[in-house]
Amino acid sequence: MEFDTIAAISTPMGEGAIAIVRLSGDEAFAIADRVFRGMGGKQLESVPSHTIHYGHIVEPSTSAVVEEVMVSVMKGPKTFTREDVIEINCHGGLVTVNQVLQLLLKQGARLAEPGEFTKRAFLNGRIDLSQAEAVMDLIRAKTDRAMSVAMGQMEGRLSKLVQSLRQEILEILAQVEVNIDYPEYDDVEEMTLSMMTEKSAYVRSELQKLLRTSEQGKILRDGLSTVIIGRPNVGKSSLLNSLVHENKAIVTDVPGTTRDVIEEYVNVRGVPLKLVDTAGIRETEDIVERIGVERSRKVLKEADLILLVLNHAEELSEEDRRLFEAVKGMDFIVIVNKTDLPQSLNIDEVKELAAHHPLVATSLLKEQGVDELEEAIASLFFAGSLDAKDSTYVSNSRHIALLHQALQTIEEAIGGAEMGTPVDMVQIDLRRTWEILGEIIGDTVQESLIDQLFSQFCLGK
Amino acid sequence: MEFDTIAAISTPMGEGAIAIVRLSGDEAFAIADRVFRGMGGKQLESVPSHTIHYGHIVEPSTSAVVEEVMVSVMKGPKTFTREDVIEINCHGGLVTVNQVLQLLLKQGARLAEPGEFTKRAFLNGRIDLSQAEAVMDLIRAKTDRAMSVAMGQMEGRLSKLVQSLRQEILEILAQVEVNIDYPEYDDVEEMTLSMMTEKSAYVRSELQKLLRTSEQGKILRDGLSTVIIGRPNVGKSSLLNSLVHENKAIVTDVPGTTRDVIEEYVNVRGVPLKLVDTAGIRETEDIVERIGVERSRKVLKEADLILLVLNHAEELSEEDRRLFEAVKGMDFIVIVNKTDLPQSLNIDEVKELAAHHPLVATSLLKEQGVDELEEAIASLFFAGSLDAKDSTYVSNSRHIALLHQALQTIEEAIGGAEMGTPVDMVQIDLRRTWEILGEIIGDTVQESLIDQLFSQFCLGK
Repeated sequence: MEFDTIAAISTPMGEGAIAIVRLSGDEAFAIADRVFRGMGGKQLESVPSHTIHYGHIVEPSTSAVVEEVMVSVMKGPKTFTREDVIEINCHGGLVTVNQVLQLLLKQGARLAEPGEFTKRAFLNGRIDLSQAEAVMDLIRAKTDRAMSVAMGQMEGRLSKLVQSLRQEILEILAQVEVNIDYPEYDDVEEMTLSMMTEKSAYVRSELQKLLRTSEQGKILRDGLSTVIIGRPNVGKSSLLNSLVHENKAIVTDVPGTTRDVIEEYVNVRGVPLKLVDTAGIRETEDIVERIGVERSRKVLKEADLILLVLNHAEELSEEDRRLFEAVKGMDFIVIVNKTDLPQSLNIDEVKELAAHHPLVATSLLKEQGVDELEEAIASLFFAGSLDAKDSTYVSNSRHIALLHQALQTIEEAIGGAEMGTPVDMVQIDLRRTWEILGEIIGDTVQESLIDQLFSQFCLGK
Repeated sequence: MEFDTIAAISTPMGEGAIAIVRLSGDEAFAIADRVFRGMGGKQLESVPSHTIHYGHIVEPSTSAVVEEVMVSVMKGPKTFTREDVIEINCHGGLVTVNQVLQLLLKQGARLAEPGEFTKRAFLNGRIDLSQAEAVMDLIRAKTDRAMSVAMGQMEGRLSKLVQSLRQEILEILAQVEVNIDYPEYDDVEEMTLSMMTEKSAYVRSELQKLLRTSEQGKILRDGLSTVIIGRPNVGKSSLLNSLVHENKAIVTDVPGTTRDVIEEYVNVRGVPLKLVDTAGIRETEDIVERIGVERSRKVLKEADLILLVLNHAEELSEEDRRLFEAVKGMDFIVIVNKTDLPQSLNIDEVKELAAHHPLVATSLLKEQGVDELEEAIASLFFAGSLDAKDSTYVSNSRHIALLHQALQTIEEAIGGAEMGTPVDMVQIDLRRTWEILGEIIGDTVQESLIDQLFSQFCLGK
């Protein structure tokens, strides 16, 4: 394929020790040579691939030095994009790195769109679509486990599974063709349908297995949306603080979102908790008071986990009971706080209200019970079974939706076969399943979808 | 010199396409090899210098893949630190890059202190102190001109000037020695003093020349602290907005400071304006109201430039006159806004109050006059004479203070010589000047100062 040469700043914006401007395309070396002055007039176009060169970036018209740089020269196809790639390693200031980029654009490079480098890696066949998506997941991973899931996907674990299922379906379809073309027996139609049913059932069970990982996979990727509720002064902000301080807070440094942060990520034993409306809790100690009853209900509804805090030193109030009412049918953990104070709470009643949900006693003041709470959170969601390193987890919503569709069409195929639907009708369902699975790895996917997917990437990737 | 091996993340924190973990020291290659798995068991220790290698970072005990990387291998002394350097180019997520760093630390690297890589470049003699400081200035540069100043300094322009002045002083001192050791004439003392005066006067004039650049140099480096004042509803926030929107806003992405931003940088024709208390202006349209009279006075006092806004459609009020009173003796520009409305302001009186200070008429609503204002700001501070590319600008407060000290001691030397002070007393002043100048380039500087200077660097540099 032929592409123009693209350029972008590939490191996060901000003051850092190193900033990188990346160039990719047929003209990458030529464009870089126009602004690069190496030792002894060295030309990047004539150096060996995968080598590093010291020099300066200059404004070609005036020869004014813009930056002192190290330039990495990588000839395609053994590069990220499979094209010729130049990486200009600058000192890391916003102004300088931007000026280097501007010079390259003036010399004929085009500013890369978000994700365009990875898109080229995909279009040039170095990686498939699910691997490309994993690149972004890897960058956004919030815990080690989420990272392992993304890494596995990037290394092609999901791709291989999907490919093997597609191969399976192709073989069924091929065998159907053979059976139909060589009808040596009278009952060929019946035999074919029974073979289809049997083999399709295998594909179905594999899809179901994959989908079973998706809930955990999605949590690992996106975080477990968690809301802390409770009456004023039961210790909601203490709980928030101890969760944040005892665990590595996950820095989210997305420009524009930092000012009115209402979400905070913490890593609780590998579970990324996304604590919702933490600003509200910090400021008013009362989520309902701050965001209003209507919005609170909405927040609760969208939560994956509720932490319901009660006061050990007070009797259960009407408000407490209403909170239990509000979280009915959801995943919640009851926290009985202030166990350092004399008991007034009727624990039996609380246990009854909590039913099968976990109940943890804490004295956040004395730093007691937080371990137990974290244990409860972790076991609630992973039941000790999760080992991200060894399994393939589906974590991406797009993949999950496609797997659900694939499961549905294969079930239609199986149902049809069992009910004696004509073979060619069943074939259609199978072929559709094969296509849907292809969308995951980008084999049978529309260009507009590809554009839309990559546009969500960060600049310079 | 011998140092242990240090490691740090050298790209800004945040989601980006590329993140780099840097290692420097004798053990850099060996440590990297313990966690790197290249193609065909390639060892980084045995590859040629300045080459790039594809592979994976793994947890050595389990061989679990942590990241897909490109590793740059650079053997000392042709490196940033003059030591062996490894740069591990990761996919750019916070979690992965941190895990790569942790692995290196477990394998024997020590977490680098802020600025420690640059400090090694200094201690290993690759750059002098003023060049090391310029590295940081380059990273923090807010405009192209500030960048050029820092670049010039990093390339050693200031160092060379300082060195030549020190050489000059050494020559005076040497000649004094010769004169005193070989007193062929009776009036040797007098002749020596007159020679000292003459040559010292040259050093003095060079120091004065350098110091004359420092005001502009400092503004280029730190920004021109600018305050907008005026009565409510004269258009302060419109002025702020048009300055911010018509010019490239300078992103300052320092974590922790973004939440309650009270400063904003804009680049007005090469002058970096630091707009103070912009949050206050945006929110209440009245700086005095928001921050109180006392603090306002302090803000005004610390400002380099005041933009005093008046309303063209209203008569001059007592409050306006008090504002003129408050800015007396400072650099200010008078802005008569709302010229789209019928005039009620007595322009003659305003002109009288403004005296020699620039006066600009604007209609911010109709986007008129902003060009003229920017012109006034630029010419006020550069008088069209600044060409950062060609001159040496002193921009660093530490350097400026030392140059002032050097100027003072050389003046004492000259004064002494002129008054017939004994030669050995004058010699002491000259030697002191030589030492002070040496502090700029780090030749005669204390270790504690060096530590303190580098600790202000960013991590990973």
